[in-house]
Amino acid sequence: MAERDAPDQPDRLFLDDFHVGQRFTSATHLIDTEQIKAFARQFDPQPFHLDEEAAKGSVFGGLVASGWHTAAISMRLQVESGLPIAGGMIGIGGEMSWPRPTRPGDVLRVVSEIKEVTPSRSRPDRGVVRVRSETRNQRDEVVQVLDAKLLVPRRSATAQ
Amino acid sequence: MAERDAPDQPDRLFLDDFHVGQRFTSATHLIDTEQIKAFARQFDPQPFHLDEEAAKGSVFGGLVASGWHTAAISMRLQVESGLPIAGGMIGIGGEMSWPRPTRPGDVLRVVSEIKEVTPSRSRPDRGVVRVRSETRNQRDEVVQVLDAKLLVPRRSATAQ
Repeated sequence: MAERDAPDQPDRLFLDDFHVGQRFTSATHLIDTEQIKAFARQFDPQPFHLDEEAAKGSVFGGLVASGWHTAAISMRLQVESGLPIAGGMIGIGGEMSWPRPTRPGDVLRVVSEIKEVTPSRSRPDRGVVRVRSETRNQRDEVVQVLDAKLLVPRRSATAQ
Repeated sequence: MAERDAPDQPDRLFLDDFHVGQRFTSATHLIDTEQIKAFARQFDPQPFHLDEEAAKGSVFGGLVASGWHTAAISMRLQVESGLPIAGGMIGIGGEMSWPRPTRPGDVLRVVSEIKEVTPSRSRPDRGVVRVRSETRNQRDEVVQVLDAKLLVPRRSATAQ
């Protein structure tokens, strides 16, 4: 992957460490034409992700990244720097939208806010954290919103 | 990508061609360990996607694909064979869940059902189709559910 700053990884957080309203911001990632085309060739081979000329005539008016590419980059940013969860980032599911496309030259970062923290009733060693993550570009425009449910262990459950 | 059968691409569909209850089934894709690790190295570098030994000790009990990898493969299957939309598959957003992980050796396919067809009030040349897509493995177990809203042109809007 291309340029990305590499901040120190903070301590990993357990369910007990999360509270509603907590916010996290990831490092940044610069996306370019080559990355967009490489992802599209593998996973989303449509003209507006592969060919500048064809993309001009599309609803996007130019080359754009696959929404799944934006999602994958957002995941990497959060895994590496955005949301340090003990045991890893394990998503159960969520709701997502792409209010506008990601374009070549965009510098993406992910800003997350904790919306709910719910200990499991049946499994005392874990719980679910609902987090709303906005992926924003260099103009602070939102290119993706993901409201996700993550499986998070309780502090007692794992020896860190 | 690895083995994938290649059925003939059916005619591309416009908003006017869709109706609630219509179903589509994609070709299949065999996912293997190397694909899982390659995607994870690039987009989701967590031990349970990268290292068999570490994965054994995780909640998954073995190596699993990133949920975003399952999503990306599902997209390719639908673009190539599952859901032939005129103008391409353009997602606005949706709701997704991963009821169980994708594992090495799984053979994935996508089964979709049209849930809503809504012409745009402000833009007579297009509308929104809501489609529920289940990605299933070779045992017919659902590994992903995506309830997505897609932007679809009306037949009059584009000369095919």
